Amino acid sequence: MARFTVVYSLAATDSADARKQAFDLAVEQTLEFPHDLVTDPHIRDEIVGRVEALEPLPSGRFQVTVSYDEATAGLEFTQFLNVVFGNTSLKPGVRVESLAPTAAQTAAFRGPQFGVEGLRHLLGVHHRPLLCSAIKPMGLSVASLADLAHRFALGGIDFIKDDHGLADQAFSPFQQRISACMEAVRRANLQTGRRCLYIPNVTADGSQTLARARFAKQAGAAAIIISGALTGLSTLREVALDPQVGLPVFFHPALSGCYTISPTSGFSHFAFFGQLLRLACADAIIFPNFGGRFSFSREECAAIAAGCRSPIPAVRTALPAPGGGLGFHNVRDLINFYGRDAVFLMGGGLFRHNPDLTRSVADLLQLVEDEVAATPHAD
Amino acid sequence: MARFTVVYSLAATDSADARKQAFDLAVEQTLEFPHDLVTDPHIRDEIVGRVEALEPLPSGRFQVTVSYDEATAGLEFTQFLNVVFGNTSLKPGVRVESLAPTAAQTAAFRGPQFGVEGLRHLLGVHHRPLLCSAIKPMGLSVASLADLAHRFALGGIDFIKDDHGLADQAFSPFQQRISACMEAVRRANLQTGRRCLYIPNVTADGSQTLARARFAKQAGAAAIIISGALTGLSTLREVALDPQVGLPVFFHPALSGCYTISPTSGFSHFAFFGQLLRLACADAIIFPNFGGRFSFSREECAAIAAGCRSPIPAVRTALPAPGGGLGFHNVRDLINFYGRDAVFLMGGGLFRHNPDLTRSVADLLQLVEDEVAATPHAD
Repeated sequence: MARFTVVYSLAATDSADARKQAFDLAVEQTLEFPHDLVTDPHIRDEIVGRVEALEPLPSGRFQVTVSYDEATAGLEFTQFLNVVFGNTSLKPGVRVESLAPTAAQTAAFRGPQFGVEGLRHLLGVHHRPLLCSAIKPMGLSVASLADLAHRFALGGIDFIKDDHGLADQAFSPFQQRISACMEAVRRANLQTGRRCLYIPNVTADGSQTLARARFAKQAGAAAIIISGALTGLSTLREVALDPQVGLPVFFHPALSGCYTISPTSGFSHFAFFGQLLRLACADAIIFPNFGGRFSFSREECAAIAAGCRSPIPAVRTALPAPGGGLGFHNVRDLINFYGRDAVFLMGGGLFRHNPDLTRSVADLLQLVEDEVAATPHAD
Repeated sequence: MARFTVVYSLAATDSADARKQAFDLAVEQTLEFPHDLVTDPHIRDEIVGRVEALEPLPSGRFQVTVSYDEATAGLEFTQFLNVVFGNTSLKPGVRVESLAPTAAQTAAFRGPQFGVEGLRHLLGVHHRPLLCSAIKPMGLSVASLADLAHRFALGGIDFIKDDHGLADQAFSPFQQRISACMEAVRRANLQTGRRCLYIPNVTADGSQTLARARFAKQAGAAAIIISGALTGLSTLREVALDPQVGLPVFFHPALSGCYTISPTSGFSHFAFFGQLLRLACADAIIFPNFGGRFSFSREECAAIAAGCRSPIPAVRTALPAPGGGLGFHNVRDLINFYGRDAVFLMGGGLFRHNPDLTRSVADLLQLVEDEVAATPHAD
């Protein structure tokens, strides 16, 4: 049977210690049972994880490659995650660096249903980075949020997302908000001739996420956003693949810091924000940009972008969508850094640039067009 | 409107820095927008988080108490989590130490539907810690797993859970496994006169978790187990409250290490494994015991037990269920440490004690009875 592989890094005193830890990890993630008590040769030799490679890293840690029989995870996403890191997440010093699922797994998980080309096709914009802002703050009425969306759309922005803090609160109930904002953006699009997309936040409890996504689709939404760490990634995936939804899904990173905040535990930025979210069918992946009020470094952001684009056979690439700390001053740097296949999120910066939001968006769009024209070879 | 509070710890250079960070956190978790640009006084004064207290900790970190308007989270669990820690999870050095939901939130979230008394009532065992083992390793056939369950049950164990690695793999498909193990335990109970409960693992992708829980109920299960970090905690909650399920839920910690592994980020053991999981309606909470192959310290395990039992108005307590590293040698220590209201999980230890599993379980049960009789005042 085919095997999938996971590359981990771990802290060890020397190669012998690393090899012992790697074997323990491979047993923990599969048998979770004393290896010496297993009598069935198929279980002992095939079902148990297999240490395929081990090498020291410049950091002093060790890199370990473990392969797992595809049968251990089958074609279920939660069980795949469980074999990759379930119990070992509870041990300090071990980090998931990268994943390589089998062909049958990628075929089953499917990945982004739209991806970069699909999202560009929806907008009819192919030559430049895409622009997104958010309606906020929480506490505004539905009418005020719809008015913000209208003004953003008139300026020519590509995407307007609900702030991730907009759920179904009394001050802007979900269904009313979605209907009003859809209508506001539709009116603006008639005026501009553009195809600005409003992205409702459908993050909710349990099966309510799917129910809200279906409502959003019915109301005319062309994309949705889900905080996958709040709902569970398999819920994001289920919504993305639901035939009654059929919309591109933006991932919001609320609560996701828990997975990547420790440099020696959890997941690498490449594995979590890139590979895993693509396997969970996210089309665009929002994360905190370097240099802003969050702490992600340039290297971590580059790893996320690489994870969004790295080859996974038969799985589409996703759009990296950096947000936080974006302003008019660093658009050029961002284009050079992320290339054109990215979504730039700007929130507070648009409000600060000009109290006339429509003007602010138009200025940003012009700046991006100018920068792209000036750097024809950026990609 | 009522306010809920969250106690965080954070790294800061001095009190002034801590105060600034606390204010930034309170803004990030609510407005996520420049505070100085907010003109609406209700939003600026009520919707924004409020720093209620700040004090230095012996560790050199600072403890910060922030209150949030109940309206920001409403009565949704995912949005509650989002306000508690959504974006701030992405910033290093901030940890959630404890939570205090409002009365309306606890009424809405509801908490354990059975709790300690409910689980004891199902078993008819009131005077001693409860005992649990798991059928494993993965790779065994349905018949072999059912045989293991039968032998455990004959020995007098209280709970037999699926190993968390048993999902719906080809080697033991979910429905066949549940039916066969239910029948095996039923036969054993007829023989022993006891009420041993078999606990199927219903962890699955998206809405499949609920579907499996309903199947388990139909098949006669009296409890289920869910790896809540794999499914998302709101899915665990939905299943626990589903009227067609109506079963106590055991929480398994697979992937949960991501939330607590860093001592300066994520959640404290008290907040995550105790408070949050109770709000998510877990009746029994499995976690790695100190002294075993995992790294949880005695202090962390004590904090989990305290979180399972700490007063949350109108929310039942949960049973702490330490596993990993439990053996015949430390039963007395465990009873002294956790008291009688706990579930002790023993896996490999039972296999090592005696190749006759039924004998092994009977010996363990006798040991626990003897220890409880010898320490009449443990509670």
